[in-house]
Amino acid sequence: MYTRKDKKRSSGSTGRHELSELGEFGLIDHLTKNVQIKNPGTIKGIGDDAAVINTGNKLMLLSTDLLIEGVHFDLTFMPLKHLGYKAAVVNISDIAAMNGVPKQMTVSIAVSNRFSVEAMEELYSGLLLACEKYHVDLVGGDTSSSVTGLLISVTITGEVSNEDVVYRNGAKEGDLLCVTGDLGSSYIGLLILEREKQVFKVNPNMQPELDGNEYVLQRQLKPEARTDIYNLLKGAGIHPTSMIDISDGLASEILHICKQSGVGCRLFEGKIPIDPQVKQQALDFNIIPSVCALSGGEDYELLFTVSQKDYEKIRILEGITIIGHMTSPAEGTKMITPDGVAIDITAQGWDAMKKRK
Amino acid sequence: MYTRKDKKRSSGSTGRHELSELGEFGLIDHLTKNVQIKNPGTIKGIGDDAAVINTGNKLMLLSTDLLIEGVHFDLTFMPLKHLGYKAAVVNISDIAAMNGVPKQMTVSIAVSNRFSVEAMEELYSGLLLACEKYHVDLVGGDTSSSVTGLLISVTITGEVSNEDVVYRNGAKEGDLLCVTGDLGSSYIGLLILEREKQVFKVNPNMQPELDGNEYVLQRQLKPEARTDIYNLLKGAGIHPTSMIDISDGLASEILHICKQSGVGCRLFEGKIPIDPQVKQQALDFNIIPSVCALSGGEDYELLFTVSQKDYEKIRILEGITIIGHMTSPAEGTKMITPDGVAIDITAQGWDAMKKRK
Repeated sequence: MYTRKDKKRSSGSTGRHELSELGEFGLIDHLTKNVQIKNPGTIKGIGDDAAVINTGNKLMLLSTDLLIEGVHFDLTFMPLKHLGYKAAVVNISDIAAMNGVPKQMTVSIAVSNRFSVEAMEELYSGLLLACEKYHVDLVGGDTSSSVTGLLISVTITGEVSNEDVVYRNGAKEGDLLCVTGDLGSSYIGLLILEREKQVFKVNPNMQPELDGNEYVLQRQLKPEARTDIYNLLKGAGIHPTSMIDISDGLASEILHICKQSGVGCRLFEGKIPIDPQVKQQALDFNIIPSVCALSGGEDYELLFTVSQKDYEKIRILEGITIIGHMTSPAEGTKMITPDGVAIDITAQGWDAMKKRK
Repeated sequence: MYTRKDKKRSSGSTGRHELSELGEFGLIDHLTKNVQIKNPGTIKGIGDDAAVINTGNKLMLLSTDLLIEGVHFDLTFMPLKHLGYKAAVVNISDIAAMNGVPKQMTVSIAVSNRFSVEAMEELYSGLLLACEKYHVDLVGGDTSSSVTGLLISVTITGEVSNEDVVYRNGAKEGDLLCVTGDLGSSYIGLLILEREKQVFKVNPNMQPELDGNEYVLQRQLKPEARTDIYNLLKGAGIHPTSMIDISDGLASEILHICKQSGVGCRLFEGKIPIDPQVKQQALDFNIIPSVCALSGGEDYELLFTVSQKDYEKIRILEGITIIGHMTSPAEGTKMITPDGVAIDITAQGWDAMKKRK
């Protein structure tokens, strides 16, 4: 689901402006800057993981994501069933990020005649598997032919009460910054798949070496959405002050929360949860492990803030890591290395608009 | 929004099945035949103009449509602003077809670097113009690069009360079959645009001859959704027994209502409302005018049925035409020509999956 980011357009030039000048977030920001909300039922429009609609009883959440062959996925190593599953999960994750419960889904596909009916059956079997696991109803959509490749557009609804809903903009100075699960593993999975694809191109008789990489491959090919966190936090009596899902990388998501909440932050590099095996694999690729977490993306874990008074409650929860705290905006958005050096956090998150330059 | 149609797959063959064997409706039917609705809030899933969700207070409607360059639109004669407007309107029309009020919209676009920022501004100006006219809030979406061309995926929500909602499956034997506005004009508009494109290809110095064709061109390039019909019928004390919007052509939509309601029909060819100028233009193209209405599509008028007891109320409403009545299913789905000949109604509606064969 899209969000705004105030990237400036290059000034001083006239005439045609290339899309790559703006990037994905910049383009959305530019195109939607004059959008005004008029219906009283529309509580939150553009700018969070999902739109929020007042239905008079509970709140309804609405989010949508587009997945395009050659941009978001590579069918040479992404089985269609996994792709269907993942297309559903990335949307379900947006609902989890609002502290909501996913409910209904529409799926539109555009497909070239390169694909068979059997291929579409595979894709749908993955979609329906995710729907079953997360108790989501597939309620509609659209299909069409495509000039090239495969495109999947998923829209999801969710439900949340007025008391439970969590936005990106509620973080306060002094709040604790927390994350679920571990980060960076999906990116390592992608690197391994891309490496094996290159090996296969050079020698098609080589079998891909995927043994021992099951965890990172599963994180990349069959991610799960953290819909369990809603109950975990509720059970512990914790209401997050802000929340976002990690699709573009930890750095990008932290900056979203800081900007929308009007706060700064201190992130402690040494606290970022990274699986020990993933750390080793990152080093094997000559990448600093924390960079996989900061810029890799596609982890679909939840990043959230809680009030400092909830410290005792949150620190005992399994699978949740406190990685920093929020500060005044004047203190900036910094990561503190294990040596105590403060580095500005910059979003090098995966940018679909720039990737194709 | 997609609907099911029980086209059988070719039997007796094994291995790969081509998508063209099924067609658009057949593919959806095939892929979604095992979909089960589990959430109690999901009142209507696949199979109508929109899904229907119980929010505890009113009903929420949800519908989605995909528009793809080279399949659904041709940018050589479709200005981007009009395209944005139309992309919104075709979705708003789905909400009108449920007797609902459109509320929120998400718009996802995939765009190749052939397009400039200014081109996207044009597209959005049309989208936002439609949002303003129909009081719809743009609340989110997604943008991405595309390998080729432009793709627009719109999802819309609407609101309707339990008393007002109208499905496709409520038509009863003896009900009157009614249609709003006039039909076939959008298709004539398309034929004129395609003719002038061919002329231009042969001689680029030729200016397109569009004078005198304003009405049909507007119907094709800037259609409107009949959200006004809700108030018109309510004001007259009429509750339709079934309703659908005319996107694929009158024939296809009548068959949807008959099949889902389990009734037959008698459609009177001479009663189909066609603008006199459109009749002449159809004849100039050597097309029987009623064929433009039956198979042309993209009129975005509403087709609906009302109880016979509402005859006196409905016949005085301006802009509504009674074109036939519903029968027992055993009597079939027939069109009666002015000579009194009964012809089986067959859907030759525009089929996105087959168009590219």
